[in-house]
Amino acid sequence: MILARIHVTLKASVLDPQGTAVTKSLHALGYDEVTDVRIGKFLEVKVDTTDRAVAEERITEMCEKLLSNTVIEKYEFQLVEA
Amino acid sequence: MILARIHVTLKASVLDPQGTAVTKSLHALGYDEVTDVRIGKFLEVKVDTTDRAVAEERITEMCEKLLSNTVIEKYEFQLVEA
Repeated sequence: MILARIHVTLKASVLDPQGTAVTKSLHALGYDEVTDVRIGKFLEVKVDTTDRAVAEERITEMCEKLLSNTVIEKYEFQLVEA
Repeated sequence: MILARIHVTLKASVLDPQGTAVTKSLHALGYDEVTDVRIGKFLEVKVDTTDRAVAEERITEMCEKLLSNTVIEKYEFQLVEA
């Protein structure tokens, strides 16, 4: 078993209104030291294979096809034994 | 500046319907090797301080008060220089 730990985040050039809302909420709670919040997704995908090279290729495909919107998001992942 | 990289994930005992939906979609696309998907949040919070101990304490507070629902979610974070 291999576990892919995938981070899907908005590209730097894309506005993050959810992050802006959280920043404002943190300021309202008194956390004035917060200067920026960006919010993304964290996916843990478990695959039944032991071949890391194949897993890497397949996970990349999944990210491109389903797990991220590559117009506005980028993704990166690490593979760990599970 | 310190950047907190925060992972907020559902506790292991909590069902993840969004993850189940993604698993099914991946199977429909032919990725039958996928056995489980769990979906969480990934937050990057930038704070204007250089004191790591203070940052750690404040970020923990933010996670407890606003960034996670500790009834069903757990959080962990790393601090990096930004």
